[in-house]
Amino acid sequence: MKVAIMGSGAMGSLFGGLLAEAGENVILIDVWKEHVDAINRSGLKIRGVDGDRVVEVKATTQPSEAGLVDLILIFVKSYDTRKAAIDALPMVSSNTVFLTLQNGLGNYEQIAEVVGSERVIAGTTAQGSTLIAPGEIYHAGSGITIIGEISGVVTTRVKRISEIFNRAGIKTEVSGNIQGVIWDKLIINVGINAITALTRMRNCELLEVPEVKEVARKAVMEAVKVAQKAGIKLEVKNPVEEVFRVARLTAKNKSSMLQDVERKRKTEIDAINGAIVILGKKYGVKTPVNETLTALIKGLELTITRRK
Amino acid sequence: MKVAIMGSGAMGSLFGGLLAEAGENVILIDVWKEHVDAINRSGLKIRGVDGDRVVEVKATTQPSEAGLVDLILIFVKSYDTRKAAIDALPMVSSNTVFLTLQNGLGNYEQIAEVVGSERVIAGTTAQGSTLIAPGEIYHAGSGITIIGEISGVVTTRVKRISEIFNRAGIKTEVSGNIQGVIWDKLIINVGINAITALTRMRNCELLEVPEVKEVARKAVMEAVKVAQKAGIKLEVKNPVEEVFRVARLTAKNKSSMLQDVERKRKTEIDAINGAIVILGKKYGVKTPVNETLTALIKGLELTITRRK
Repeated sequence: MKVAIMGSGAMGSLFGGLLAEAGENVILIDVWKEHVDAINRSGLKIRGVDGDRVVEVKATTQPSEAGLVDLILIFVKSYDTRKAAIDALPMVSSNTVFLTLQNGLGNYEQIAEVVGSERVIAGTTAQGSTLIAPGEIYHAGSGITIIGEISGVVTTRVKRISEIFNRAGIKTEVSGNIQGVIWDKLIINVGINAITALTRMRNCELLEVPEVKEVARKAVMEAVKVAQKAGIKLEVKNPVEEVFRVARLTAKNKSSMLQDVERKRKTEIDAINGAIVILGKKYGVKTPVNETLTALIKGLELTITRRK
Repeated sequence: MKVAIMGSGAMGSLFGGLLAEAGENVILIDVWKEHVDAINRSGLKIRGVDGDRVVEVKATTQPSEAGLVDLILIFVKSYDTRKAAIDALPMVSSNTVFLTLQNGLGNYEQIAEVVGSERVIAGTTAQGSTLIAPGEIYHAGSGITIIGEISGVVTTRVKRISEIFNRAGIKTEVSGNIQGVIWDKLIINVGINAITALTRMRNCELLEVPEVKEVARKAVMEAVKVAQKAGIKLEVKNPVEEVFRVARLTAKNKSSMLQDVERKRKTEIDAINGAIVILGKKYGVKTPVNETLTALIKGLELTITRRK
């Protein structure tokens, strides 16, 4: 299968690298020239859970150099999704499928707007990956990947992609309720990301201050109400407890949004708490806590980008 | 008049220094030994708006060394108010009056609990002062000071203190609605302090991001509703516009709470947004924005004090 990865940062490089290692015809695409050059020069270095090795894989900054492909994985940050879908158009044939495993809400919709919803499947992944240096990633953990059609129908193409992923060592399941799965993960991010970014807390510290824990609970409950009104069936029984469980499980971790803030980068706030605010307005659910968190992160983005 | 200053940081040293310069018998009291020693050794250096000079004034870390005094100005941070009132007891005679010009809510009440409400008068000040070095302050601006009895009665003692302050160049007015005056200032702090501390914005930047401005508006409106239920008559007609006006006026300033966060110190959150939350519960007013801001600052206090 010919696979293009749009956005070959930590996670994109991991998926592309594992698929290439399993014999798929992969091309990594990213705007970061130094990273692309390092991969073309010396291969993609993967360290971590499955041992250290170097994977031969093509990389480019130009989607037009890739030719037509069967599968396009979108792994850019959520605020670049629309642009990535447009940039990917030169690789699209009549059978090309897009798969988004990105964080947050709105990625599926933005890709579908550009290429048509019949071409897009969605999912989540609990793989862990960090970019160490140009051409080099650290594979921190092999969590489950879940994919599915937004319609809920278990199609041949989803099963085929799942098989290819599993063959490459990417543990993957197919879900008939992928929207619920995406929302489960969204709600974890709603409860943890903005709060840890604003307080500079590691995930476990969120549980130490009762007032902070209460804000997390309220942010999550707002999201749960929005999900209900939007007709989403969460897979998780008790979302608040799940958020606290994940915070304990990932105790020492810095959330992705805290990492973005520390690196003075734009965050994915619009696809996380910001998406809850927008949908809350649509469905008539009040979301004062998510509104406050979203606004504060936008304020913080202004100062960190202005003074970097 | 014999005057003791409990908490002789930037603002306490300014008031004590100006009163001593005008011939009052002043003693500066502070826990910071280096500052006290510098003042006793070389006098208090005042730079800034009224010219640079050195003022001879006594300083000590021990209230018991001060003897009995007529007036005690409490200028500690709001979270130390109760302790300061207790520490001041050795200086209290039958006629001693306490004056709090501190930020936030609850200072009057805490002093009154220790020494009796008949001994306490309250107020606000718009003087600007910064501690530059031990024994040295910068007098940044001579804003108005307003004092009054909580009862609203304009008493002889309040008029007398006002006269002494004015004679010392501290422009002072007496108000029959000092609670309204204190709430006016509180509401400015409710709208600016926590938001700028979390976003690291200078005051004017708060107005640049519409979502942030909206959070400030909501935090202020919650406080206004609490004030109404608490029977407080604000002096200001349009509190939201007033907050934005002050943010523009003090455009380049960092709020006191942002300064505390940058210096990795405890903040006055409990006397500002936290006080709105407590009173909101008492009066049945929902305060989700102030709850979120208070919790986030408490979270931030945990990480800044833990990692300093």
